[in-house]
Amino acid sequence: MSLSRLKEPAAPPSSHFQNQEQGEELLRLIGRLYPICRSLTGSGVRETLAILRDYIPLALHSVRSGTPVFDWTVPPEWNLRDAYIKNSSGAKVVDWRNCNLHVLSYSAPVKRTVSLSELKRHAFTLPERPDWIPYRTSYYKENWGFCLSERQLSSLPEEDYEVVIDSSLQPGELNYGEFFIPGRTDAEILVSTHICHPSLANDNLSGVALAAFLAASLQREPRRYSYRFLFTPGCIGTIAWLSLNEKRVDKIHHGLIVACVGDAGKIHYKKSRRGDAEIDRAVAQVLKDCDAPHEIRDFSPYGYDERQFCSPGFNLPVGCFMRTPHGEFAEYHTSADNLDFIKGECLMDSLNKCLAVFDVLENNHTYVNQNPKCEPQLGRRGLYGSIGGDAQGKTNELAMLWVLNYSDGRNSLLDIAAKSGLSFALLETAAARLLDAGLLAAGENDAGAKLI
Amino acid sequence: MSLSRLKEPAAPPSSHFQNQEQGEELLRLIGRLYPICRSLTGSGVRETLAILRDYIPLALHSVRSGTPVFDWTVPPEWNLRDAYIKNSSGAKVVDWRNCNLHVLSYSAPVKRTVSLSELKRHAFTLPERPDWIPYRTSYYKENWGFCLSERQLSSLPEEDYEVVIDSSLQPGELNYGEFFIPGRTDAEILVSTHICHPSLANDNLSGVALAAFLAASLQREPRRYSYRFLFTPGCIGTIAWLSLNEKRVDKIHHGLIVACVGDAGKIHYKKSRRGDAEIDRAVAQVLKDCDAPHEIRDFSPYGYDERQFCSPGFNLPVGCFMRTPHGEFAEYHTSADNLDFIKGECLMDSLNKCLAVFDVLENNHTYVNQNPKCEPQLGRRGLYGSIGGDAQGKTNELAMLWVLNYSDGRNSLLDIAAKSGLSFALLETAAARLLDAGLLAAGENDAGAKLI
Amino acid sequence: MSLSRLKEPAAPPSSHFQNQEQGEELLRLIGRLYPICRSLTGSGVRETLAILRDYIPLALHSVRSGTPVFDWTVPPEWNLRDAYIKNSSGAKVVDWRNCNLHVLSYSAPVKRTVSLSELKRHAFTLPERPDWIPYRTSYYKENWGFCLSERQLSSLPEEDYEVVIDSSLQPGELNYGEFFIPGRTDAEILVSTHICHPSLANDNLSGVALAAFLAASLQREPRRYSYRFLFTPGCIGTIAWLSLNEKRVDKIHHGLIVACVGDAGKIHYKKSRRGDAEIDRAVAQVLKDCDAPHEIRDFSPYGYDERQFCSPGFNLPVGCFMRTPHGEFAEYHTSADNLDFIKGECLMDSLNKCLAVFDVLENNHTYVNQNPKCEPQLGRRGLYGSIGGDAQGKTNELAMLWVLNYSDGRNSLLDIAAKSGLSFALLETAAARLLDAGLLAAGENDAGAKLI
Repeated sequence: MSLSRLKEPAAPPSSHFQNQEQGEELLRLIGRLYPICRSLTGSGVRETLAILRDYIPLALHSVRSGTPVFDWTVPPEWNLRDAYIKNSSGAKVVDWRNCNLHVLSYSAPVKRTVSLSELKRHAFTLPERPDWIPYRTSYYKENWGFCLSERQLSSLPEEDYEVVIDSSLQPGELNYGEFFIPGRTDAEILVSTHICHPSLANDNLSGVALAAFLAASLQREPRRYSYRFLFTPGCIGTIAWLSLNEKRVDKIHHGLIVACVGDAGKIHYKKSRRGDAEIDRAVAQVLKDCDAPHEIRDFSPYGYDERQFCSPGFNLPVGCFMRTPHGEFAEYHTSADNLDFIKGECLMDSLNKCLAVFDVLENNHTYVNQNPKCEPQLGRRGLYGSIGGDAQGKTNELAMLWVLNYSDGRNSLLDIAAKSGLSFALLETAAARLLDAGLLAAGENDAGAKLI
Repeated sequence: MSLSRLKEPAAPPSSHFQNQEQGEELLRLIGRLYPICRSLTGSGVRETLAILRDYIPLALHSVRSGTPVFDWTVPPEWNLRDAYIKNSSGAKVVDWRNCNLHVLSYSAPVKRTVSLSELKRHAFTLPERPDWIPYRTSYYKENWGFCLSERQLSSLPEEDYEVVIDSSLQPGELNYGEFFIPGRTDAEILVSTHICHPSLANDNLSGVALAAFLAASLQREPRRYSYRFLFTPGCIGTIAWLSLNEKRVDKIHHGLIVACVGDAGKIHYKKSRRGDAEIDRAVAQVLKDCDAPHEIRDFSPYGYDERQFCSPGFNLPVGCFMRTPHGEFAEYHTSADNLDFIKGECLMDSLNKCLAVFDVLENNHTYVNQNPKCEPQLGRRGLYGSIGGDAQGKTNELAMLWVLNYSDGRNSLLDIAAKSGLSFALLETAAARLLDAGLLAAGENDAGAKLI
Repeated sequence: MSLSRLKEPAAPPSSHFQNQEQGEELLRLIGRLYPICRSLTGSGVRETLAILRDYIPLALHSVRSGTPVFDWTVPPEWNLRDAYIKNSSGAKVVDWRNCNLHVLSYSAPVKRTVSLSELKRHAFTLPERPDWIPYRTSYYKENWGFCLSERQLSSLPEEDYEVVIDSSLQPGELNYGEFFIPGRTDAEILVSTHICHPSLANDNLSGVALAAFLAASLQREPRRYSYRFLFTPGCIGTIAWLSLNEKRVDKIHHGLIVACVGDAGKIHYKKSRRGDAEIDRAVAQVLKDCDAPHEIRDFSPYGYDERQFCSPGFNLPVGCFMRTPHGEFAEYHTSADNLDFIKGECLMDSLNKCLAVFDVLENNHTYVNQNPKCEPQLGRRGLYGSIGGDAQGKTNELAMLWVLNYSDGRNSLLDIAAKSGLSFALLETAAARLLDAGLLAAGENDAGAKLI
């Protein structure tokens, strides 16, 4: 039995976010989240999730420190109240309140007077970018440290410094947000993004904002698929979610990690470990159809949380949607990944591409030609010629012939798009007209999905 | 059990039509057929089939108008007695007797006086080719119309015109011709061509003449395969044939549609929907072996009657053999596709290539090496060295080694040709010598075929 | 059950032969073998095997003349005591004692006075290389003949010549040497080389010396695989071995023919008939990892004794390892393939590449990730980060992630190398560390092998 809403015409892709105001709304959300000091755990994460609840009705979840999650253990909660370096005159030469990247994330508390040389052993800089402050973490190995610009560090004279990191590392909780939009079936499309980075705009407030706006948009009307949005601290948060939800991951029919989606670079898509999952083919089709520069890469076992979803024990069909990939833009993990680095129109473009991918998935059906022996007579059904001899008419007729010929129950519209070279939208329209004419019937779709 | 005549040496490909006189015979047949006003049905089709019976003993078949054939209905029979446009002085400014393209095929009868502007609503021209008359049809939607050159139409002054189309659209019959040449087995090679076009030489009197000469040539001696030739009105004729012969289409092991085979362009072959059928590989091998420019294209669900044979309910191994494909030469479907546009030597070349393809199919066997462990000692059988150390001798030895090594019951000679890069003829000769020496035996061939 | 010694670290590839002295030892062996007059049978073969026993404890085998071996019969034994051409003054114008290529191999005895023109009918030269003496054989068709330089032949005046070939063709034996090095299992790696060529250095004293040194090196310590070395007369010797050992060829898991391995050309590897055997992938990986120019070719059924091992009745995973292939260097089968044509460093390079291939085979295991759901926490095991953020450290971490992600029981390290683009050595090291950490377990390896 097919559970699909086959006859409803597809919404035109990329129709959702097109005016400048929407881009500004995306940037406004990012602007609210930017100043917060986030890490894997702590009040910054909770504050972030609270702001997102202004946009979507996120469910908040917490996991106690010390809880085993697969091979890992939820770490103690880290909170930071203040941090600075004072020189011998008592002036703050580095002040965390100016930039929350200044503190090594998960720094243990410290309050000491140190020589310049000892300070340097705990200082991280980017000598090749002397004005930028790097972002560094030490989640699972206790340490303390400051990140500062090379110029700041090299200007410090030889004297004693008071270093203060007023942090706590105590039993607490790991927090994440989850938002489930039920569809007509319980087959799910997963969207996951990491929320653990402090004041870094592209990596990954861009992904956080995009996911929130996607969710807000998708909840407006019922869809074939259910959608699940996860806002988790990277790695440990996703591992915790997978550990708690292990039994139901088979509901995930397609998934996207979104990250680094606000810069001006071209779109990069990293395929799922399966390599030919429907999500992989849907993204490739959308990027081909919109004819914008892009790059599609094979799966590799590093990057964002596709690492966990695509670990061999899960091997879920989850790809990663980015503009410029992590580590491939100079600003990555530095203070230069700031609000100036991301653009409203790029965010909107990323968002629209994701919506277009979901539109393809929603409308990617396998049909069965009801008149498989010889062509049906399209003309007497008003589907041929009457359209006119213009080029668009011919292309529409061609699309119908492709759909009819390959709808033998084995090829989905995405398969037919790949064979024919025609756009998905054209084939989708052709299929809708052929369905209306009774020339197609639904084939096997949504294997294993149940009506909600 | 293998039903193949394995030991007979293959006739050398392209041996059949090589002198100018044969090219002239082909052109003579086309010249006889050219003036006839043909359409899907009517006396023109019957007259055409009658002429073809001067060459081959065609069986004539008819299907009554109104007969349902799959999703279609055989249309009323169309006949045309006269058609012209007279100006107010009574002079015929367009006269169908000069060129049978002048009348929209399947025009309803009309006898009226019309203004120039009304006439223009029923006139078809080619503005970009002002001296050529287009070919237009309206088979399944009642209409009337004239096709004329842009120069003719634009020279008509503003006045009233008498338009007369003395046609009839009445219950009658659809006619087609069929010629079956029994072979040693009931496995068939199908050749089909469309006979519904009026005075158009390349599309498709070239195909009609080629098929007739092919048939005449193939009937001269018994072959492994049976051959079935169809001369049908395009689309509806083939649909009618498939409808009437649905139960025995599984006898068709290989098939070719032939069309547009007389122009000077390079050969184009469009693969069957299966894409790797033996006919697809045989044509590719012949075109490679003869080292002439050519192009091989994937199947697409438009074109000639491969559309019907390759509809998903049949999915027969039928490709389409052409020189310049339909729609890709300027003269296509215009009065410029006339007797000057086709060449005797091009027709002969097309014919010889088709014969070479059938020779490959006839001789493409799967053998089993009778001495599979280590090489057999070719030398003591006079198959090695004794041939001489010349280059041709070495190539022949090489061909024997390829045949021996890959004749494990899974690879046919065509498969071995693809692996080795050697020509089919070379491997065929090698196989014949190895058979003679008892080093090969016939493998599984002609699955499902029965001796006739 | 896996029989592999999984935890032992791999020896670094290409570690074995690196100093000039070893190259000189290889050349010294070749120098000892070079003067001997070898053919398919006879005392030259026995003398050759005796010298090889100075290096490795070869087992000597003999097969009586007249013994049927598959489609062949072991030929009579050929021995040559003297051969020359004297002019009418009694001067030796051609003397076999100067160069053993002078006599057509397997020449029947002759002692006659012949005219120049009759002599020419039994003389072989290379007109395009007037100073070189060709190498010719007539194993299976009785004949006599001399090979000489074009310059020698053309300088002979018109007079009578005494031709003497003091040879014997009598019942005797075919000899070959075999050396078996037992490993931990009875799964074998075969190395085979032909020993039937007279004074020709690259083809194939290079292969003989390389195989002997390989064997000497591999016997020093026990390995996972057993190794079998064959030193056989080409073609008939291998056919004899296969005939006598037919029942146990399924022990051969991987095999290499080595020939023409001493010239300065780049390495060529010809794949086994299977095309994707583990040996084929191992050689390709080693050649890729060492980043030296090389060429990999598909199997073809001519060349060296891979022809026999890869005949369809055996189809063993045996490829052919060469530098410049037979027939592709001008010196091939001429007196110019002499001791000057081969280089110690090229021999050592070939030898080291073969050792590297065997190291890959020895260490190519399939593992099973013991923590397949999400990544394991490498950091707390000292496998991540602690290594340092340097480039090598990052690459090592990456290699561990690739091994973990793809060790699902279906991918061997070679498969993972192909997917990741990383070197085998890197992945092998990563796997060893993960095994130590308990994160991997052995998968199914050495199917069908038994512990020795």
